[in-house]
Amino acid sequence: MTNISRLANFVADAARIVESGSGEAAIVAELSPKLKALVSVDDWLPAAYAVADGKAYQQHLLYADPLDRFSVVSFVWGPGQGTPIHDHRVWGLVGVLRGEEISVSYARSGDGSLEAGPAERLPQGSVGAVSPDIGDIHAISNGLPDRSSISIHVYGGNIGTIRRSIFDARTGSARDFISGYSNEAVPNLWLRRQAETA
Amino acid sequence: MTNISRLANFVADAARIVESGSGEAAIVAELSPKLKALVSVDDWLPAAYAVADGKAYQQHLLYADPLDRFSVVSFVWGPGQGTPIHDHRVWGLVGVLRGEEISVSYARSGDGSLEAGPAERLPQGSVGAVSPDIGDIHAISNGLPDRSSISIHVYGGNIGTIRRSIFDARTGSARDFISGYSNEAVPNLWLRRQAETA
Ligand SMILES: [Fe+3]
Ligand SMILES: [Fe+3]
Ligand SMILES: [Mg+2]
Repeated sequence: MTNISRLANFVADAARIVESGSGEAAIVAELSPKLKALVSVDDWLPAAYAVADGKAYQQHLLYADPLDRFSVVSFVWGPGQGTPIHDHRVWGLVGVLRGEEISVSYARSGDGSLEAGPAERLPQGSVGAVSPDIGDIHAISNGLPDRSSISIHVYGGNIGTIRRSIFDARTGSARDFISGYSNEAVPNLWLRRQAETA
Repeated sequence: MTNISRLANFVADAARIVESGSGEAAIVAELSPKLKALVSVDDWLPAAYAVADGKAYQQHLLYADPLDRFSVVSFVWGPGQGTPIHDHRVWGLVGVLRGEEISVSYARSGDGSLEAGPAERLPQGSVGAVSPDIGDIHAISNGLPDRSSISIHVYGGNIGTIRRSIFDARTGSARDFISGYSNEAVPNLWLRRQAETA
């Protein structure tokens, strides 16, 4: 039995913060330490949402606000797995729950191509951010060659449903994609039936 | 593949209505026709949440607001199954998706016992209401002797987590209970991964 109430409490905090009417910078500033606390203890993610796949990384939805104001997703990276270069169109926070990740940011250069910044290592317990304001284009990959890594991402929208872009670094050209999610069912964050019936 | 977007749209409507700041009567008046529309088409409930159990009726959480403002639950009644006499402490709407239900309301009489009102038949497609304001004590059972019935309930709180009462009709005495939920996972209301990955 996992300690799912940690995730329930985080989702409640996120709902409160996102519904407060604060702007992006304030939301991200308030939510980052909550995500850091969530990924500092690895006892709450149910096994179904920690499963890697040999073919591609998995993005398991954990919770999405019905009014598309935020979503929480578990990304599971097998050895050697990573994303193409992509954007988000909304703010995003990345917290590393297990293992580690490598994040590379990209900036448009004069000739239209995308120039890679330095590879940033995100160790277990760390939190990074992306957004249209602070830099929205990156690629993420597993930082471990021999094991899965898992990161918990929070976005300022229902990320699996947003039409966004995948980029070719050399030409800078973009093509549309909508990521969807890997899972048919999300965790029940609240208590399961006790002895009692009614 | 079920048409899960019907449920996603209903949950979004419910979130909008519940967050509007209206009072209970206005919320219930606005939400009732949405629930009636939801239960008028039986093509959206995933099979996992339509499963009866030989021992007791099932209450499958479909969605709960992280701030406990509302919840949506699928109740599955096998032949002969029904609830004890119970209350809710919050408003509740009952919409019959499949089969039919019998609802009996109870009122406190002079000697402290609970007096049963007439048995009300809720056919497929109908919507009923309970609440502390309009009468909060009832018992529900399957109206069909030979098949399962399924009803979709919406409550003005996270019903599985609320401490409420089960009653003895003769003495009127109450005992505490918290119902919980039957399921470990709830439906992903949003799109599953397409061909594309990122
Ligand atoms: Fe990303
Ligand atoms: Fe009831
Ligand atoms: Mg909400």
